[in-house]
Amino acid sequence: MIGVIDAGTTTIKLAVYDEDKLVAIKKEPVVKHNPKPGWVEIDAEDLARKCVSFADTAIDEYGVEVIAITNQRTTAVLWDGKTGRPVFNALGWQDMRANALAEEMNRDSTIRMARTAGMIARGVVKLLPTLKNKRRVKWLITLSRLSIRPNHTSVKLCWMLRELGEKKEKYDLKAGTVDSWLVYRLTGEHLTDYSNAAATGLYDSYYLRWSEPILKIVGADEEMLPKTLESDRIFGEYRNVPVTGVIADQSASLYALGCWEEGDIKATNGTGTFVDLNVGEEPQASPGGLLPLIAWKLKSEMRYMMEGMLFYSGSAVEKLKEIGIYDDVSKTSEMAFRSKNDDMLLIPSFTGLATPHYVSVPGLLYGISNAMTREDIVKALLESIAFRIAEIVEIMRKEFPYETDRIRCDGEMSSNDFFLQRIADVTGLKVERGAVLSGTSFGAHLVAGRALGKWKKDFCMPFDKVFEPSLDLSEKYRRWKRLLEISKKLKV
Amino acid sequence: MIGVIDAGTTTIKLAVYDEDKLVAIKKEPVVKHNPKPGWVEIDAEDLARKCVSFADTAIDEYGVEVIAITNQRTTAVLWDGKTGRPVFNALGWQDMRANALAEEMNRDSTIRMARTAGMIARGVVKLLPTLKNKRRVKWLITLSRLSIRPNHTSVKLCWMLRELGEKKEKYDLKAGTVDSWLVYRLTGEHLTDYSNAAATGLYDSYYLRWSEPILKIVGADEEMLPKTLESDRIFGEYRNVPVTGVIADQSASLYALGCWEEGDIKATNGTGTFVDLNVGEEPQASPGGLLPLIAWKLKSEMRYMMEGMLFYSGSAVEKLKEIGIYDDVSKTSEMAFRSKNDDMLLIPSFTGLATPHYVSVPGLLYGISNAMTREDIVKALLESIAFRIAEIVEIMRKEFPYETDRIRCDGEMSSNDFFLQRIADVTGLKVERGAVLSGTSFGAHLVAGRALGKWKKDFCMPFDKVFEPSLDLSEKYRRWKRLLEISKKLKV
Repeated sequence: MIGVIDAGTTTIKLAVYDEDKLVAIKKEPVVKHNPKPGWVEIDAEDLARKCVSFADTAIDEYGVEVIAITNQRTTAVLWDGKTGRPVFNALGWQDMRANALAEEMNRDSTIRMARTAGMIARGVVKLLPTLKNKRRVKWLITLSRLSIRPNHTSVKLCWMLRELGEKKEKYDLKAGTVDSWLVYRLTGEHLTDYSNAAATGLYDSYYLRWSEPILKIVGADEEMLPKTLESDRIFGEYRNVPVTGVIADQSASLYALGCWEEGDIKATNGTGTFVDLNVGEEPQASPGGLLPLIAWKLKSEMRYMMEGMLFYSGSAVEKLKEIGIYDDVSKTSEMAFRSKNDDMLLIPSFTGLATPHYVSVPGLLYGISNAMTREDIVKALLESIAFRIAEIVEIMRKEFPYETDRIRCDGEMSSNDFFLQRIADVTGLKVERGAVLSGTSFGAHLVAGRALGKWKKDFCMPFDKVFEPSLDLSEKYRRWKRLLEISKKLKV
Repeated sequence: MIGVIDAGTTTIKLAVYDEDKLVAIKKEPVVKHNPKPGWVEIDAEDLARKCVSFADTAIDEYGVEVIAITNQRTTAVLWDGKTGRPVFNALGWQDMRANALAEEMNRDSTIRMARTAGMIARGVVKLLPTLKNKRRVKWLITLSRLSIRPNHTSVKLCWMLRELGEKKEKYDLKAGTVDSWLVYRLTGEHLTDYSNAAATGLYDSYYLRWSEPILKIVGADEEMLPKTLESDRIFGEYRNVPVTGVIADQSASLYALGCWEEGDIKATNGTGTFVDLNVGEEPQASPGGLLPLIAWKLKSEMRYMMEGMLFYSGSAVEKLKEIGIYDDVSKTSEMAFRSKNDDMLLIPSFTGLATPHYVSVPGLLYGISNAMTREDIVKALLESIAFRIAEIVEIMRKEFPYETDRIRCDGEMSSNDFFLQRIADVTGLKVERGAVLSGTSFGAHLVAGRALGKWKKDFCMPFDKVFEPSLDLSEKYRRWKRLLEISKKLKV
């Protein structure tokens, strides 16, 4: 039996697996505070206690052999090694307090020089295309889009260190992401895995080390940061049970969906959507704005991935429920299939759009009329999210010439047949739906099982339905893209 | 006691007044058929029977001294004088079947010549502004915007006559609007009043005669059409009770709200909104696209009015209820007052916009976001309708330099405090709400009373609330107008 602690954005869960069967699941809410608009803090002490309590349950009630951890990325925790207590509430990944700070950091001369060097590299590669396979050149190209974003761990850590000021001296400061914090509280070790490290904005995924120049800008010492370990190493023990299978959420899903090889794509549709492309054993760069990340590093293999994201997908479906369009999210697929209206289009910029539109875009519902129905609005929403995914897949296919004919999906919102059908229709790829929608914890359990030698990498979750492309949506997709381009200029 | 038969779009009502008190009201639905999308037919025989039955009730149960009639305008009825039966279902004012026919008629050389003459007149007036007070010049300016619209009686009549073809010979054809049809069935007389005639698109309001050139285009003889009578004449008798106080709906409201003199403005907010400006004893022209109409012609006086309209106002509030934003229209004012969001804007083009935007505009909801609430959407809708009214009032004030400091409102939707407050805020005029929201039947009763010598023109309905301008909406209104201009070009 394997116990997985899955520390998500809204809940922390314990999932217990017996081989590939889920035998128990328990949930607790993640306690959050919003002291100001845009501030999202997590009670780190409460989270650690719930984690420890789940570990006890896993051992006492289910006799698990191992505890695995998967988690939301980039959330920053700062704690004191002397007491083991957090110095601040954790700053959640959606926390936007450090907007201004991120801008300031972006103006730092190191960042600007790096960007200039990157732009030069991009120019050179246009002249000498073969150069683009060199790791240093790819690293430089990535630098050309180097930008400290408020959701990076780096900027959150910087904010906390500045807040502390001289009080820093009082503590034995330790920083990390959620995995690192929970591992610390379970085992006393200060560790993280590569998939989490790569998402912090502090880590150099090309050369596998904490980035010195960025640490300097942040004002952090390398000693504050955890050591990086392969996900299938033993991170320590809790009550004599080993902790292993530590892996970031999107990486765990990619793994669980069997997207193990170059060219494999998955989309995890939760509150937001993360689209990840496995790019194999070498890191890659993306002039189009995909994020280069480490999919996983295990003892025997390493995979990189490129990521595109949508801030709001499942949350948008919840939002329309909240304003009264329907009272049950599970009806939305049927509703959308019933709609005969092809005049309504939606720009789902509920909190901005994300990849590759990191600019302010107003959300828009186009084509309201006396003929519109609730069904039409639902359809416009679900199609708009499928269109956003198509945009990201388009960049992936343009930048990486893999021959891929499918996307695999997990996440709660993937239960929506209409939505998955439209992803197939607009991308022209077949969409395979994982039978386990919470691929995150399933993936961590697979990695933990591998660590124990229970299985090799030749089993992933089963798939319960395949959606073949059937409707030609290209004209509607073009109209939607035109509307999006207009919306980007439409600040009134 | 006065019995008013009020033949509206969705219901036909009997309202019985004892002096200024409403003592009874009865309603029956108007039976409509939609044989095809955009076709709106009214069962004219059913309507006549309900009218006669209401007249009987008025006489038998209330002993009324007089029967008045007020009605929806432009709806076309064609009947046979030999049998007194309709030849077709009436074609409702919203019926759009004759779109193509209207376009064809607009290409007729007579219409095009008239428009050219009108354009020349507009040019000449720019050079010699004093000319614009000449009746013939105003007539010519009106011609410059001459356009047969599918909602005109003219084009509906043309459609019916073409459908009949040679079968025309079988009948003693009589044509008219709803007032004319009901008067005919009550009294046997073929008559109409000036306010109804002026709205048909067949009538020359400048020279007070049926327009020969348009009759020619339509293919109708003047003998088919009713004689035109002052509204306070006796139109005939039904069971020895005189029928008088025959007046079109918007004219009746204008009268009921005491908008008797030049510069007085009213807005009737029902399913759509009609904004009417009393322009006094001389007909006027509007280069900005207001419709020149006859407000009323009584034995002792005549008033002209200029009209602007919104297709969808109360209907839009019903529409948002239908899609689930709220379950009770009467809550919308409170809801809108609660909203703190000023980022959402709505272009209420539910079936197009009407005055002065007679072009296809997509309906738009701008600024959807994770922060939006139902309240915000309601506010955006109600404000958008207030903005549309402001646009029309703006044209009125630009074209007619009356010093007006108020707008009077009636119609069901005027019960919405937030909405009326916003009309005041955006126009800078105080808004007076009539205590009788169905000003239509109240106005017909006033005219009928005057015909009987019960009172002179010195009493109108009381007002139950005054809304003073308080919030400066000018910046938001400018943003909304910018969005509207963009929307007009936004066909994707």
